[in-house]
Amino acid sequence: MPNSALSASSDQLSLSEWMKDSQARIEVALNAFLPGAQQIPADLHAAMRYAVLDGGKRVRPLLVYAAGQLRHADHAELTRAACALEMIHAYSLVHDDMPCMDNDALRRGKPTVHVKYGEACALLVGDALQAQAFLILAEGKNPPARQLKMLQVLAHASGSLGMCGGQAIDLASVGLPLTREQLEQMHQLKTGALLRAAVVLGAVCGNNEFTDNELAALDNYAHAIGLAFQVVDDILDATADSTALGKTAGKDAANNKPTYVSILGLEASKVLAEKLRLQAHEALSVFSNTRRLAELADFIVQRST
Amino acid sequence: MPNSALSASSDQLSLSEWMKDSQARIEVALNAFLPGAQQIPADLHAAMRYAVLDGGKRVRPLLVYAAGQLRHADHAELTRAACALEMIHAYSLVHDDMPCMDNDALRRGKPTVHVKYGEACALLVGDALQAQAFLILAEGKNPPARQLKMLQVLAHASGSLGMCGGQAIDLASVGLPLTREQLEQMHQLKTGALLRAAVVLGAVCGNNEFTDNELAALDNYAHAIGLAFQVVDDILDATADSTALGKTAGKDAANNKPTYVSILGLEASKVLAEKLRLQAHEALSVFSNTRRLAELADFIVQRST
Repeated sequence: MPNSALSASSDQLSLSEWMKDSQARIEVALNAFLPGAQQIPADLHAAMRYAVLDGGKRVRPLLVYAAGQLRHADHAELTRAACALEMIHAYSLVHDDMPCMDNDALRRGKPTVHVKYGEACALLVGDALQAQAFLILAEGKNPPARQLKMLQVLAHASGSLGMCGGQAIDLASVGLPLTREQLEQMHQLKTGALLRAAVVLGAVCGNNEFTDNELAALDNYAHAIGLAFQVVDDILDATADSTALGKTAGKDAANNKPTYVSILGLEASKVLAEKLRLQAHEALSVFSNTRRLAELADFIVQRST
Repeated sequence: MPNSALSASSDQLSLSEWMKDSQARIEVALNAFLPGAQQIPADLHAAMRYAVLDGGKRVRPLLVYAAGQLRHADHAELTRAACALEMIHAYSLVHDDMPCMDNDALRRGKPTVHVKYGEACALLVGDALQAQAFLILAEGKNPPARQLKMLQVLAHASGSLGMCGGQAIDLASVGLPLTREQLEQMHQLKTGALLRAAVVLGAVCGNNEFTDNELAALDNYAHAIGLAFQVVDDILDATADSTALGKTAGKDAANNKPTYVSILGLEASKVLAEKLRLQAHEALSVFSNTRRLAELADFIVQRST
């Protein structure tokens, strides 16, 4: 891949051009980092590729790239970290969609993995994607100590004190009258942990020399966009239709799951999303090279799908 | 933990004393490496601990310790690697027992995780244990390059070209008339991959300076005991009762799954197990400090549960 050529010219791209460019690059890399569909066991590999490729907005990879600008991280290593994170995200969707969890048949406009390949295969697809994520990150070419730090960030964000923990709280909260604080805590783990990891992975991939003040700013930015992401998801779930979303809309309400819209109402949710967008911008003020991070905060709040 | 004191005296222990000593040490370490049962989300953490603690013979950790003798690896780092591997093994059992896979209600004499905590929780327990395994290994104190190598070994052995791949082949082979070669290929991934990883992790934890000849010998040993382990499992499944095994006996035959006993017959399976035990001993001849590895090869073949 012509890394340097793309990096040199990418400053001149609009956000939408930069996103398309980055998404295309991630697609190529994910394709290369996944075992081939002909490799044995072929069914499993075909299903892993189905779960990961050709899907989603790649918000987490975009955040990795954007945060990578802070310390001018190597583009190939950012791509690797972005792919590892996206594989974790993809596996979580596969398992989340299974009958014993959300029992969803539609994802990104296509049948979910367990609908297409069967439940047992979906279970293994998720398990194998998690291992693949750690494998490709462990094969990174950054200095080993930095690469280990990145593995720690990914593992912590994925586990019981991160994403899996948030899913467990989510499960336990169905039908319960959550307070806004409890809802926020759940989402800060379930969705926020990987979004924060994206920002930290991108930043640390350049180098690990951040002051406490800078680390706090990264955390504030990630916290704000993580929460904003979920608030906007809840707004879209309540207002958009399934075709536009590529997944079943109105599902949370149907499942009696608490959402920002159900707790705060639609208008107050929109006000909150805008407030979080401004908080994210504010947090970036201690850094230079924050253009894409700032633009992504806008995108996360202003998206329509 | 009084590492040096234990290590210094451990040469004088019989195999059975050394196993008890090592198993006790692993139990203490697993307890410390798992989030506390009071930590939020408490249900998830309680279930993770239920899945891992107080169970099994800890064959993989024992192999890590035994292979650690080859290069005099640091005992605390061996313990860490052994715990990471055991968490991967434990998560695979949790997912394997689920209704969409083997649908088993009994494991190590206790209700399986999904029976006790529900299917959704069992799914998350497995996912979170996998992340926890990579987290604790990424926090290891060996030189970073060596620690990265160990993470690569663990991730490769766990994924679609290792354990998960073997499970996928196993799934696809139920009811099919497998040849002995196909059965061996399946088991070399499903069970063999983690057993080989145990040997390699223990060896590499000391240092990564092995000649090609030595690496081939490690692989031959691991291949032989990995296969022997499965042959003996099949023999025990056909001959022992559920109470002695702590799991449902005769299940493979009932599920029409091919086994060594169904393909070779009982007596030829016993002959094969003994042949593999001798192969394992033979492979060790290029090393010194192989006492526990040799004893474990005997144990794996001669065990009765």
